[in-house]
Amino acid sequence: MQELNASNKMIPLVRVGVVGATGYTGAELLRLLLRHPQVELKMVTSRADAGVRLDQHWPNLRGECNLSYVVPDLDALAEACDLVFFATPHTVAMSMAAELLEKGCRVIDLSADFRIQDIDCWESWYAAKHQSPELVRQAVYGLPEVSRSQMHDAALIACPGCYPTAIQLGFLPLLENDLVEPDSLIANAASGVSGAGKQASVPNLFTELSDNFKAYGVAGHRHLPEIVQGLNAVSKTSVTLTFVPHLLPIIRGIHATLYAKPRTMDVDWQSLYEQRYASEPFVDVLPAGVYPDTRSVKGTNMCRISVQPIVHSNMLCVLSVEDNLTKGAAGQAVQAMNIMHGWDETLGLMQIALNP
Amino acid sequence: MQELNASNKMIPLVRVGVVGATGYTGAELLRLLLRHPQVELKMVTSRADAGVRLDQHWPNLRGECNLSYVVPDLDALAEACDLVFFATPHTVAMSMAAELLEKGCRVIDLSADFRIQDIDCWESWYAAKHQSPELVRQAVYGLPEVSRSQMHDAALIACPGCYPTAIQLGFLPLLENDLVEPDSLIANAASGVSGAGKQASVPNLFTELSDNFKAYGVAGHRHLPEIVQGLNAVSKTSVTLTFVPHLLPIIRGIHATLYAKPRTMDVDWQSLYEQRYASEPFVDVLPAGVYPDTRSVKGTNMCRISVQPIVHSNMLCVLSVEDNLTKGAAGQAVQAMNIMHGWDETLGLMQIALNP
Amino acid sequence: MQELNASNKMIPLVRVGVVGATGYTGAELLRLLLRHPQVELKMVTSRADAGVRLDQHWPNLRGECNLSYVVPDLDALAEACDLVFFATPHTVAMSMAAELLEKGCRVIDLSADFRIQDIDCWESWYAAKHQSPELVRQAVYGLPEVSRSQMHDAALIACPGCYPTAIQLGFLPLLENDLVEPDSLIANAASGVSGAGKQASVPNLFTELSDNFKAYGVAGHRHLPEIVQGLNAVSKTSVTLTFVPHLLPIIRGIHATLYAKPRTMDVDWQSLYEQRYASEPFVDVLPAGVYPDTRSVKGTNMCRISVQPIVHSNMLCVLSVEDNLTKGAAGQAVQAMNIMHGWDETLGLMQIALNP
Amino acid sequence: MQELNASNKMIPLVRVGVVGATGYTGAELLRLLLRHPQVELKMVTSRADAGVRLDQHWPNLRGECNLSYVVPDLDALAEACDLVFFATPHTVAMSMAAELLEKGCRVIDLSADFRIQDIDCWESWYAAKHQSPELVRQAVYGLPEVSRSQMHDAALIACPGCYPTAIQLGFLPLLENDLVEPDSLIANAASGVSGAGKQASVPNLFTELSDNFKAYGVAGHRHLPEIVQGLNAVSKTSVTLTFVPHLLPIIRGIHATLYAKPRTMDVDWQSLYEQRYASEPFVDVLPAGVYPDTRSVKGTNMCRISVQPIVHSNMLCVLSVEDNLTKGAAGQAVQAMNIMHGWDETLGLMQIALNP
Repeated sequence: MQELNASNKMIPLVRVGVVGATGYTGAELLRLLLRHPQVELKMVTSRADAGVRLDQHWPNLRGECNLSYVVPDLDALAEACDLVFFATPHTVAMSMAAELLEKGCRVIDLSADFRIQDIDCWESWYAAKHQSPELVRQAVYGLPEVSRSQMHDAALIACPGCYPTAIQLGFLPLLENDLVEPDSLIANAASGVSGAGKQASVPNLFTELSDNFKAYGVAGHRHLPEIVQGLNAVSKTSVTLTFVPHLLPIIRGIHATLYAKPRTMDVDWQSLYEQRYASEPFVDVLPAGVYPDTRSVKGTNMCRISVQPIVHSNMLCVLSVEDNLTKGAAGQAVQAMNIMHGWDETLGLMQIALNP
Repeated sequence: MQELNASNKMIPLVRVGVVGATGYTGAELLRLLLRHPQVELKMVTSRADAGVRLDQHWPNLRGECNLSYVVPDLDALAEACDLVFFATPHTVAMSMAAELLEKGCRVIDLSADFRIQDIDCWESWYAAKHQSPELVRQAVYGLPEVSRSQMHDAALIACPGCYPTAIQLGFLPLLENDLVEPDSLIANAASGVSGAGKQASVPNLFTELSDNFKAYGVAGHRHLPEIVQGLNAVSKTSVTLTFVPHLLPIIRGIHATLYAKPRTMDVDWQSLYEQRYASEPFVDVLPAGVYPDTRSVKGTNMCRISVQPIVHSNMLCVLSVEDNLTKGAAGQAVQAMNIMHGWDETLGLMQIALNP
Repeated sequence: MQELNASNKMIPLVRVGVVGATGYTGAELLRLLLRHPQVELKMVTSRADAGVRLDQHWPNLRGECNLSYVVPDLDALAEACDLVFFATPHTVAMSMAAELLEKGCRVIDLSADFRIQDIDCWESWYAAKHQSPELVRQAVYGLPEVSRSQMHDAALIACPGCYPTAIQLGFLPLLENDLVEPDSLIANAASGVSGAGKQASVPNLFTELSDNFKAYGVAGHRHLPEIVQGLNAVSKTSVTLTFVPHLLPIIRGIHATLYAKPRTMDVDWQSLYEQRYASEPFVDVLPAGVYPDTRSVKGTNMCRISVQPIVHSNMLCVLSVEDNLTKGAAGQAVQAMNIMHGWDETLGLMQIALNP
Repeated sequence: MQELNASNKMIPLVRVGVVGATGYTGAELLRLLLRHPQVELKMVTSRADAGVRLDQHWPNLRGECNLSYVVPDLDALAEACDLVFFATPHTVAMSMAAELLEKGCRVIDLSADFRIQDIDCWESWYAAKHQSPELVRQAVYGLPEVSRSQMHDAALIACPGCYPTAIQLGFLPLLENDLVEPDSLIANAASGVSGAGKQASVPNLFTELSDNFKAYGVAGHRHLPEIVQGLNAVSKTSVTLTFVPHLLPIIRGIHATLYAKPRTMDVDWQSLYEQRYASEPFVDVLPAGVYPDTRSVKGTNMCRISVQPIVHSNMLCVLSVEDNLTKGAAGQAVQAMNIMHGWDETLGLMQIALNP
């Protein structure tokens, strides 16, 4: 039973650790965890930056946190933490999660390690041998709008990728109700540059991306099988999806423009979407004719969606935006944590976006 | 018969005027005309800025031109100019072109006034009564890659719009050869902000568009009928096109991501495109697997195209980029002028894009 | 005596109104007030947008607020509100504040109306007749780091301008201790575009400002007399300041690069600054050799300062950054409100900046 | 004696090579050389990219050039080229220039190797042992506005740095005429990101620099001794300069805001500047009260300057802008080449900047 402490936080606080918070997803996670009322940040690991204060690496955290990075150590993590987040490149979580779970920690993985149930498929897209296939079966795919009930008691949650979140939320009402031809799906999506991470690379220099726009991964992208797996899970018949990502000269934000061929145009699309998401705290269906922009969700956990029938071509267009680092990664991870602990799902996630 | 003058320009130069060069399309036209070897810029009109020097309005022209804007006057234009460009909002050219043509000028219109052959359709999209329907029939639609031969002797050329240029050039090889299902076409396109013109407006402020991205005109956009008209002209059966434009936080550039359902995947798409555009000076088909970015054509008259079959979804994706102010407007107008006069089509249009 | 209500807010909440929240300063104020634990937002006025829901004007507020703009009315404001903020262009607050004060409201003005004690000076820079000179004398200039004690009981607070806040905080430790030559001060400052407001204007279009940089107001800027007044108030002898503002292609942020000629270099500048601001919650002196960037304070009420002696030229350089809309406007107004009510000064102002 | 060839180029063309054109300065040089009427680009070297086509590395060059990078080889360079440009990091040119000069090539170095006459000073700022101190004495510092006459017959020209060009051109008229106190000089300058080169690095990522602004190198920057050397050369007494660079979220452009204390305000500053630069093709003094923006010179070899007396503080402010890659590097190198060969100084350098 939890009680209120002097700061009106319930006690005892959940003790959390973050493995690998030197990238942008990790930074966003730190930002959210440091303001979360039920959480105490106990340990943040980084092999490369061990000994460096977090607020030296991330100047926005000055005054917020006295922790320094420590070398990742499973015993120390398990001792210090009730819950461990992985904000690491793929292949890290799958090598550490099993032991943490055995030691009694719960785990939320923001990487791709536990998202794909088909191990062969995962190994082919990620060019690596999977080291914990049994955990993949155990992991709950943490898209609350679909699998909230399974998330409550999960020990291991695989957070959805950024594109997969925006695209699945956009298509769900159509596929759940079998309203579109499942082989007609197109996801034309664009992401801010933070999705590419914090690694030094020439293609991600300011000079290369500013005042510029292009597609990438047209022939195939790692997020494709994850999206298809999620869409198939709610569709009567298996879907065929064309997914073309683009790189936007903005820091944060994903904008998905989705196309599907309706079986009939005689549907109240607006009501369909409004009702599907009426009780979802982080999906906001815009009024008919209003289209979302990425800025209105920047730094928030909100996904904003518009549905627009295109009469002259008998097509349906759905627009779905999110912040790739928040609802597309760290925010959704915190939402998962809230669900796992039975807390109000919005705890620590009610920031209002800046405007402008 | 033309001769060489002291600057190695052929004489006599063609005397050109520009109506309405206070917007961005006009500025781009001035930039190109002032360096064109066969042209003498004689008169630039603006009712609002009459008396103002061009280089006061456009600081990049300092040292390049001593002209000032003058009030538009048909007699003066006709006397001073062999050729008049209209870089005006719609409804201006249609009220002035007839008289200029009668007085012996040739006319190149960069606005939408003469692009749509179906007058009812034009009037419905542009919410105005057309004042020169007879000239619409006479006008040649100036997409050189399609109608070069008719442009040679044209007295009046209607320059294609920015989206229509990129999208038509992307779809042409497929439709001309009846290789895709004509009712499956989707054009997901994104434009730099200069496409919105130089009018003061809150939605186009830096504060509203920077670090932001959104769709607009999803239910319908004025360029739709123009694109469909152009595609139908080369297609065996009439096409159905879904066209969704987006607004990019870049100054110049259009990126069109085109989707079409192939009748068969057993086509060498790369060769198809390379051969179709082999002799086109301003269409560059990229090597297989290389995708174009908007920056590589910024400030140039080039349209860069990639074609990418997407095997897993049995779909064809074509990427087409251009500078909306150059190949999408003023550059194409200069190309039209070159064709009209039998000059080398690349005269004055061989700028190399900046990188970075 | 205040009690805790069900949401752990102290009751009764202070009822606040905002006059003129259709601009960017007002939007930032709404963002902060809607999350402030001691405040109930009761009334927001706009003559032009009366009847429009706030969240229609500001999409980031969807789900946060059901209010609509109402026509400004002094009786209604005074009845509904304990405290009224003015987020209006100059000359509005000076015509309404007196009556509100008489009716018992407290007033915080974010505009320039009550900042300058020298009425002639104000009238000359703002090109208007001042309508409430007596209130100017009564108003407290709300820079907490200087005048906190007078702010406690103030009925009317004039919030400092954006440039004046960053520049005064940068120079204060030097002038208070008479360590530099007072006629040697230079403030080379640069502001994000949001400082120019939300009015439609060609110079503030994305196309004009993106990928661009320039100085403005070099011969003189309205913030100059305000800065000089503030610096003189803490300096033994009156100062001479050269102030040159520039326009940055960023949305939010002010960066001031300050120069002063030290009387001696034999000073521990780092300690001087650290000690001066040791107890200030919203001034953060960076470690020696670390320079601030505008992003690390974006959306926060923090001012970050570095002091760097330049040995080879015997000069002192101080770098001072803030978010022009937060510490430079709305955040500082909320800080003033907190001080006026004896609350913890950081209430509602502890957002962590996004990174990246 | 040169003759006209079929393309109206004078023959024989000068054969040029570029060492190290894989960075941004080199790319700009290639762009200019490929359009230069008197030049044939014969050889471009890169150890890392040997065998790669230039237009694969730089997509803007597609269709412009069939060359591939070759491994640098002094014999091959000397045989193929009359003139060799170095667009390399420092320490490369100083190891190769002597042999090229002996073999009869002329050399234009865009790096810092030959800019500083004081070898100890150079070695201390560049943390390397200088390998060709004798060539430093022989090299002509290639700022045409100062040393044009010595450039005519130079075998080796050291191109000025980007900041040094903008800052020297801004201060020259004041120092040449002894109109300001030489120990009062401040150069507050800001550069676009391309000045940092094309190396992969976290601080130069889009995510780190976009929507951000900061100072760097405040305590000292490598360009300081070069600027001081140049200013001292024209000043009666040696100058003291405070130089603080900043990093702008733009791709190209330097903006220098210069401050100096006038000995008297009784000078016609506008005429002083206009007359000083009346015959300079690449320095444009703006009308009084008009301030330059970086965009108006982007991609051009122009330096635009405004001089603004600030009456209330008895200070002089000079604004100087250039494109750091053009007038600040490659354009100035081409200007130097033109001067060396006695050609019209503007050959190949008359591009009009884009607007917008």
